[in-house]
Amino acid sequence: MLENGEHFFEGVEKLLEIWFEESSNSENDLRNISRSDWENVLSHVNCEIISTSKNDIIDAFVLSESSMFVSKRRWILKTCGTTTPLKCLSLLLKLAATNGFTVVADLFYSRKNFTRPEAQITPHQGFTEEVTYLDSIFPNGRSYCLGSMNLECWYLYTFSRSDIKISPEQISDGKGVESDSDPDQTIEILMQDLDPETMGIFHKEKFPSAHEATLKSGINTILPSMHIDDFLFDPCGYSMNGINEKGEYMTIHITPENKFSYVSFETNVALSNYRKLINQVINTFKPGKFIVTIFANKCSLAYETMKELEVEYSKGSHWKRTDMQCCNFPSYNLLFAQYSHTDKKGDNL
Amino acid sequence: MLENGEHFFEGVEKLLEIWFEESSNSENDLRNISRSDWENVLSHVNCEIISTSKNDIIDAFVLSESSMFVSKRRWILKTCGTTTPLKCLSLLLKLAATNGFTVVADLFYSRKNFTRPEAQITPHQGFTEEVTYLDSIFPNGRSYCLGSMNLECWYLYTFSRSDIKISPEQISDGKGVESDSDPDQTIEILMQDLDPETMGIFHKEKFPSAHEATLKSGINTILPSMHIDDFLFDPCGYSMNGINEKGEYMTIHITPENKFSYVSFETNVALSNYRKLINQVINTFKPGKFIVTIFANKCSLAYETMKELEVEYSKGSHWKRTDMQCCNFPSYNLLFAQYSHTDKKGDNL
Repeated sequence: MLENGEHFFEGVEKLLEIWFEESSNSENDLRNISRSDWENVLSHVNCEIISTSKNDIIDAFVLSESSMFVSKRRWILKTCGTTTPLKCLSLLLKLAATNGFTVVADLFYSRKNFTRPEAQITPHQGFTEEVTYLDSIFPNGRSYCLGSMNLECWYLYTFSRSDIKISPEQISDGKGVESDSDPDQTIEILMQDLDPETMGIFHKEKFPSAHEATLKSGINTILPSMHIDDFLFDPCGYSMNGINEKGEYMTIHITPENKFSYVSFETNVALSNYRKLINQVINTFKPGKFIVTIFANKCSLAYETMKELEVEYSKGSHWKRTDMQCCNFPSYNLLFAQYSHTDKKGDNL
Repeated sequence: MLENGEHFFEGVEKLLEIWFEESSNSENDLRNISRSDWENVLSHVNCEIISTSKNDIIDAFVLSESSMFVSKRRWILKTCGTTTPLKCLSLLLKLAATNGFTVVADLFYSRKNFTRPEAQITPHQGFTEEVTYLDSIFPNGRSYCLGSMNLECWYLYTFSRSDIKISPEQISDGKGVESDSDPDQTIEILMQDLDPETMGIFHKEKFPSAHEATLKSGINTILPSMHIDDFLFDPCGYSMNGINEKGEYMTIHITPENKFSYVSFETNVALSNYRKLINQVINTFKPGKFIVTIFANKCSLAYETMKELEVEYSKGSHWKRTDMQCCNFPSYNLLFAQYSHTDKKGDNL
């Protein structure tokens, strides 16, 4: 709710992902952190756990505002609304240290530009404030703005230990930066101006259970290997986490109100080409515009996808790519692309 | 001079480049604008013409703060210090219209982050202010920040008529956006922390004439086809414009003071590979760090260079690439790369 009494909810999430350096003791595991400790962490963020699922490799939490994923040495927190995820960082780092993880290998903090930045709470009242907060914890972090700063954009703060530790010799032999990394990739698709009929599915008055909304929308068919934990909010809104036996995850969050509709899709499934997945997500939710970001710590993977998306630009599509940028970081490559529908006919990329 | 009396000069330039749509009357030419009209334009910028050179295709002006280039339908203004190039835009557009050029096809405004932003004059007191000013003249312009916002970065505002005029049909047949463009490419190399001995050349007490400084430094060998108009400032500082028979240009500006040394190199010579040129510029001036930007309106050209620079990263070089980004705009591709020397040995990229 805004000050003028108008109903509004900021669907745009703040996404925090931290990788810790492998611990010398193989028993150490972030999943040893207790439920009450996580509740304490999340109290700094202003959100709560509302559902959990897990398998041998990953714990997934549906939150009152989005999701949290915990695996052995990686922690992911994605929260929407006016939550304050950066405020839990100090406590999270302490808990990680207590559990044997004292060194942050990589940190990524990212978000799209807020629809209503003025509604946010400190330290999230602007990207500059967020960067200042992160810089006080992570020296030599880097901050980026992809897309057009004065129109639509996506902010990224990244800290990489490899940025500091590599020596010239390691650079020149082409090794070093990735030698102790697991293969990793993340794709996010952030959608706005969604099809009202599709968004209608995610109202409690239409479907009494989240499961029915999941089936009706076709969310269950996007990545069929995923074990789904879904939640339908009252009166509307939807969140789901999916995890599979490989420890991969997917997560979808839906703010269905027409005036400020927003859907986010995220997964770390390993694919050599994301075009089919992007098309399926777009055809499921029917946005008017969307942003795609792909992170990959294998150059070839990101580059193949980049070329792929580039080629598709000129084919008979009704999507106009308004922006595309590619960034090379020390241990990751990043592709950012932004699309707008040139008319309202459903169409493939 | 700063408020505290400390000597300082902002070498970092503001670069404005405007392409007008081809005029229906082939007699129309921006070079028909008179010297006194240009002087009037430049009075809004707070700089003056100190030398001119010309050939059949291009007029080049050395200014008290950097350079101006005028050709048939393209205008380039590059000014350093605390000049205010945006303030001449309205007058420039009026003069262009009087001379038959009423439609801006492409506009680029760019600059590196200032060393001392607080010394700048409105509307240049921050990129946000610059964008607001440009947005008041060019609707649907886009603004970008490449590199790390909290460390070193390069700002770009770009307006492209093709961003507005192309229809979905033009997108889908892969034509339209470039059909009425001339081939065009620009490389800039912005260098800091330069070798003091090399910078020593650009002091009036060492060399009484600019020509001698040009020869001693080897600037004349970088692009030998260029006819050089050079100027040595008192007590120090250097500017040169070079133009060749094809209408191509190069320009170099040097702020030699050790505490804030800065050298910029720019040219639009058509090359399929810029590695040799970059190496020659770097070996001439010996910076501690530098930024390269390459614009090209042929995808293949930008991409070839990008791949080239990427490959060079992992070879036995003492340059560490701290950032690399690639942007696809409607009618141009842009490559941005940032390098730091890992030690002080001179070395090739």
